[in-house]
Amino acid sequence: MGLSGTLYRQLQKISGKQNCTREKEDLLCYAYDSTGTCFLPDAVIFPGSEKEVSRILKFASKERLIVVPRGTGSGMTGGAVPVKGGLVLVTTRMNKIFDVDENNLIVRVQPGVIVADIHKIAEQKGLFYPPDPSSSSVCTIGGNIGECAGGPKAVKYGVTRDYVLGLRAVLPSGEVIQTGVSTAKGVAGYDLTRLIVGSEGTLAVVTEITLKLLPKPDAVKTMAVFFDSMQMAAKTVSNIMREAVVPRCVEYLDEACLHLVQESLSFELPRGIKALLIIELDGDMADVEKDAKKIKELCLSYGAMEVMVAKDQTEAQKLWDARKALSPVLYKIATNKINEDIVVPIDKIPEMVQVTQDLQKKFGLKVVSFGHAGDGNIHCNIMYHKADKDESKRAQKAVDELFEATLNLGGTITGEHGVGITKIKYLPMEIGTTQIELMKGIKKVFDPQNILNPGKIFC
Amino acid sequence: MGLSGTLYRQLQKISGKQNCTREKEDLLCYAYDSTGTCFLPDAVIFPGSEKEVSRILKFASKERLIVVPRGTGSGMTGGAVPVKGGLVLVTTRMNKIFDVDENNLIVRVQPGVIVADIHKIAEQKGLFYPPDPSSSSVCTIGGNIGECAGGPKAVKYGVTRDYVLGLRAVLPSGEVIQTGVSTAKGVAGYDLTRLIVGSEGTLAVVTEITLKLLPKPDAVKTMAVFFDSMQMAAKTVSNIMREAVVPRCVEYLDEACLHLVQESLSFELPRGIKALLIIELDGDMADVEKDAKKIKELCLSYGAMEVMVAKDQTEAQKLWDARKALSPVLYKIATNKINEDIVVPIDKIPEMVQVTQDLQKKFGLKVVSFGHAGDGNIHCNIMYHKADKDESKRAQKAVDELFEATLNLGGTITGEHGVGITKIKYLPMEIGTTQIELMKGIKKVFDPQNILNPGKIFC
Ligand SMILES: Cc1cc2nc3c(=O)[nH]c(=O)nc-3n(C[C@H](O)[C@H](O)[C@H](O)COP(=O)(O)OP(=O)(O)OC[C@H]3O[C@@H](n4cnc5c(N)ncnc54)[C@H](O)[C@@H]3O)c2cc1C
Ligand SMILES: Cc1cc2nc3c(=O)[nH]c(=O)nc-3n(C[C@H](O)[C@H](O)[C@H](O)COP(=O)(O)OP(=O)(O)OC[C@H]3O[C@@H](n4cnc5c(N)ncnc54)[C@H](O)[C@@H]3O)c2cc1C
Repeated sequence: MGLSGTLYRQLQKISGKQNCTREKEDLLCYAYDSTGTCFLPDAVIFPGSEKEVSRILKFASKERLIVVPRGTGSGMTGGAVPVKGGLVLVTTRMNKIFDVDENNLIVRVQPGVIVADIHKIAEQKGLFYPPDPSSSSVCTIGGNIGECAGGPKAVKYGVTRDYVLGLRAVLPSGEVIQTGVSTAKGVAGYDLTRLIVGSEGTLAVVTEITLKLLPKPDAVKTMAVFFDSMQMAAKTVSNIMREAVVPRCVEYLDEACLHLVQESLSFELPRGIKALLIIELDGDMADVEKDAKKIKELCLSYGAMEVMVAKDQTEAQKLWDARKALSPVLYKIATNKINEDIVVPIDKIPEMVQVTQDLQKKFGLKVVSFGHAGDGNIHCNIMYHKADKDESKRAQKAVDELFEATLNLGGTITGEHGVGITKIKYLPMEIGTTQIELMKGIKKVFDPQNILNPGKIFC
Repeated sequence: MGLSGTLYRQLQKISGKQNCTREKEDLLCYAYDSTGTCFLPDAVIFPGSEKEVSRILKFASKERLIVVPRGTGSGMTGGAVPVKGGLVLVTTRMNKIFDVDENNLIVRVQPGVIVADIHKIAEQKGLFYPPDPSSSSVCTIGGNIGECAGGPKAVKYGVTRDYVLGLRAVLPSGEVIQTGVSTAKGVAGYDLTRLIVGSEGTLAVVTEITLKLLPKPDAVKTMAVFFDSMQMAAKTVSNIMREAVVPRCVEYLDEACLHLVQESLSFELPRGIKALLIIELDGDMADVEKDAKKIKELCLSYGAMEVMVAKDQTEAQKLWDARKALSPVLYKIATNKINEDIVVPIDKIPEMVQVTQDLQKKFGLKVVSFGHAGDGNIHCNIMYHKADKDESKRAQKAVDELFEATLNLGGTITGEHGVGITKIKYLPMEIGTTQIELMKGIKKVFDPQNILNPGKIFC
């Protein structure tokens, strides 16, 4: 499509020259996300306010210019990648935290706020914002809304959707809407809030978010549980989740992961270890002590080799740092990975672990698994070298079979990363034509000209 | 519109003669809901399966016949009332509970299942379905989906929306869709599940629901807290909600309510009582004991006259029975009531209580308040005699001012009862034209002929 000089100058007028760019080097920086897919935009704009976002979209609407909303591009499925060119609208300048309302346990924020900053400011007030994707130190809350991000604490506390009370957003026409409530409850009209959450920037550009907070739990206890069998670890997860003590995290790391993170851990891994669970509990001090004892006993009774309870915050942090480092560190194994965040019913985790083992053998590729096992959400990483044509083909085939097996087990192809561009092809495996037609119809209601993030989810 | 003999006979063929009626006496029974509004349908049908629902809608679509989904008609805003005639589709025969999956903490049910039966079957398996509208012994889960029902336990556990993982539903065209997942998480495509939840039977007829269950808490502790000032009770609510101990219920009853339920209580109310809070805690035995002590101390420090902890399940049940009886028993005050389930931010409850007092004076009408104070959801009942034209007018004016005050305090006009027909006029006070147009657009995508429950929410 391209962007003429005249049009570009009008964009500059909206957000200021210093907040627009079409230098090749800059365009490249906004051509990617965490998938590594690359499509150059025609220009990039960094609006500073909702008003500017509205003017940009009104202008784009008039000129039929494609607009792609973007937080920090940590997305795992290409949601922020401008596959059809156009204008990338980056929200990072809109990073104000307006007010933490301690009386009503809510906070209002702009979309460009880094999620870890919400955690921090809530904690300062003795409050707690549970959603905590492993990327929280870099990703934006706008991106979390886009994908309905999850993370380790979703086991007990749910996902982003469960904390969004209301939104302000700009439609492709430039009109501003306000959805939801700033109260604990509300059912006036259709639930536009939760329709926009997880819509991957295809329905509206979110400009303000009202989030629910919780009182901060008094104490947290983190433990590492070692297993000499992946199956046993998987079975332990499904057994633990039936207990009345709901841990706030149950993360799973397979043997390959452990080799990769070994050096950053503060303790030696026992010999023969095949899997690790990181289990974290929270609540008041006495409960947490008691629950930790109970969970430890349970794990040992289910066949754990050993349970190591972190003795302090530093030791717990080391464990989490190792876990959080996993995603990038995988590139030590191969130059490329296909990372799929499938979910299966909890009691099907042992079977799913078997499936990944079988795929590994069948396709002669390393398949590394870790993730939020407590809610059945396993990140399966199929490792390959892109330069190797045959390996690439096998990797793709492995993905096909992985999804097929997931759906056969009653699961879903994506728990928190969304469809973006990488799963478009697979969506119809999970979702029937009638539903997809409904989604397309809804898209048309919001975006009749198809200018907002086209080419995503269902094309 | 009417319904010709030929058309009626075709409907009879779908669900059987014994499951269709157009006898005047029968029609009258399905002309009402809890609002007392009355509009006669042309016929009533009781399908026995999703297949029949699909055939009925396909037929209705072809004949442009209006269809109004209905559970047991306990709705508070006229959602199930056939304001434009047509066919009332009653789900009560579709009342199977398919399976409680204890491993994955889910249950699949048909829409006509009575909510209390879900509670019962979950408990039998040591599990827990938290949403518990005060009408749970009579209302259907389909109706709960229609309105996104709440209830006392929403304070800690959230509302119906938070427990619906996936749905099967029939579109007005007769096509069957399946939305959501049967796993803990899932983000494949737009969130049609939560779009249908709270859509008041205007988008699709829900035919199967997959609900999330929780492990059953070991212990429950119920207490009655007495106040000699409404304001103090209201302030106590907003103070309690900031504590790390989140009660599962914080119900509020004003003086007028207490007079009405006095005789059904198992204890004497202290003299000078102006308000009562029912606070309920759950968790493991030791925690609950400890938390109850803490909450008791807090309440006393905030000025409670007395705190009475129920000594056993029977005493607690009596308290709840009295609370649950409130809604119908109000008719002792006047022949008619307008019941509005407004929500305000928790720290605005004291102001809201003042507003209701002021309205009472200004309009010379009894205004009775009770409800789910822990989430700011107060049921305000404006009592009047319909036969008295002037009183009726004043009651309507009082509602206008109530909503205005609610919105001024940052609240919403409906926390859990929906818009139905009674709040259509008020919806635009809360929701802008652009949003309403989006909702109408979505309605059109699902129901291009406007045959499914027309005349609701936004007309
Ligand atoms: C190392 C690593 C670990 C991760 N761990 C997790 C995890 O544990 N859990 C998890 O859920 N995800 C995880 N992710 C994925 C990713 O961080 C999340 O999807 C995150 O929500 C993306 O935020 P972002 O700001 O980077 O958004 P982007 O990638 O920039 O955008 C994501 C999507 O949101 C849309 N969007 C962004 N801003 C807006 C807005 N203001 N309005 C409308 N749409 C908007 C975009 O168009 C795009 O479709 C991880 C990623 C990495 C790299
Ligand atoms: C005494 C009393 C106390 C109450 N307490 C509470 C409370 O604490 N919390 C609360 O939230 N509500 C409460 N209610 C309101 C009411 O019980 C709820 O709204 C309940 O969800 C309605 O269920 P129902 O089966 O009676 O639905 P109906 O009244 O028959 O229908 C309600 C709506 O749902 C739609 N619907 C019904 N079934 C389907 C289906 N299968 N598919 C699609 N749409 C469908 C209907 O079209 C209608 O719009 C109370 C009501 C009474 C009378």
